[in-house]
Amino acid sequence: MTDNEEIIKTLLDFRNERDWEQFHNPKDLALAINVEAGELLELFLWKNAEDANKETVKEELADIFAFAFLLADKYGFDVKKIILDKIKTNGEKYPVDKAKGTAKKYTEL
Amino acid sequence: MTDNEEIIKTLLDFRNERDWEQFHNPKDLALAINVEAGELLELFLWKNAEDANKETVKEELADIFAFAFLLADKYGFDVKKIILDKIKTNGEKYPVDKAKGTAKKYTEL
Amino acid sequence: MTDNEEIIKTLLDFRNERDWEQFHNPKDLALAINVEAGELLELFLWKNAEDANKETVKEELADIFAFAFLLADKYGFDVKKIILDKIKTNGEKYPVDKAKGTAKKYTEL
Amino acid sequence: MTDNEEIIKTLLDFRNERDWEQFHNPKDLALAINVEAGELLELFLWKNAEDANKETVKEELADIFAFAFLLADKYGFDVKKIILDKIKTNGEKYPVDKAKGTAKKYTEL
Repeated sequence: MTDNEEIIKTLLDFRNERDWEQFHNPKDLALAINVEAGELLELFLWKNAEDANKETVKEELADIFAFAFLLADKYGFDVKKIILDKIKTNGEKYPVDKAKGTAKKYTEL
Repeated sequence: MTDNEEIIKTLLDFRNERDWEQFHNPKDLALAINVEAGELLELFLWKNAEDANKETVKEELADIFAFAFLLADKYGFDVKKIILDKIKTNGEKYPVDKAKGTAKKYTEL
Repeated sequence: MTDNEEIIKTLLDFRNERDWEQFHNPKDLALAINVEAGELLELFLWKNAEDANKETVKEELADIFAFAFLLADKYGFDVKKIILDKIKTNGEKYPVDKAKGTAKKYTEL
Repeated sequence: MTDNEEIIKTLLDFRNERDWEQFHNPKDLALAINVEAGELLELFLWKNAEDANKETVKEELADIFAFAFLLADKYGFDVKKIILDKIKTNGEKYPVDKAKGTAKKYTEL
């Protein structure tokens, strides 16, 4: 079993033991990712970029990953593949010679 | 190399070729996750739970994963480990006998 | 007509001319606020705190206000009243002598 | 004093008594709006569109408004004006004859 297969299996076992699949439609999973992303963001609010509490970041980030893996599973996406594919697409939107050293959006390059 | 090591290596190569590490402080990575989470959410707006466009969901979800992996790398987190640890913690907050079949938050169980 | 009555009336006229009330349930309005909040946030991504484009901030902030007013109207809330009430509640959570000059959350004061 | 002048005055008094202006840069105010928007969204998570708790919605929505007004004040925006201006712009993006009865984005009309 790969890392990601093990993660998904553990998440699905957890969900199924609690009979929670009924709640996990794609829209609510997307909501859950946003809720957790907001909780992560709160750890940085009014703070310098490096001053969030590392342990709490770890927990909120894990929650984001969990719902993201569950949503990926819902659509049958292979997480490694969709990330590597997206990096390739981004490489075309952000060619090195134009994007190097600038934070501009591709629409402004 | 495991899946997740390969994902992170590809992301870091992409970032370093563009000299973008200077922008990728933890706070802005948390912002980026929220921005991408909002773009994912938009795909479900005013729609039934199953009616988002699957191809676009794939792309937005990949962006969320990408920034989540970059933030994990920034703190030196092992993604598999932090997810499995969090599932264990959640198991204590949501014991099967209390949480089964209900979507209530653990504070209301 | 007060400012806020005029804002809500204009928003409702705009909505009703387009027959959009059918989409504007409370949950999707909350989603819309999050989508617009994410678009606002993107204007600050990878940037110093003061470096977002003012004109674009104006537009994204207006969108957030629009959906927030529509959600308030959906529940029959008086916007001025709910804000002033919340400020009073916050005054109890953040008494001046404890909260002065610190960005700590009330749970940590 | 108009409604909105009174809201802003009360918010600024609250802030200044606590010496919080130092934290309220535009970027962190945009973060705060996202954090509060996420808390609002959580009230609808795993639920039908109408089933959020009205009292809690009121409080979270008030928080969103509060930070939105503070950000507007930071840029010197007149809240009523920016909303009415945006509705006019949206009227051009969503002409009645094309947008009536459909939730499509203007880019798809």
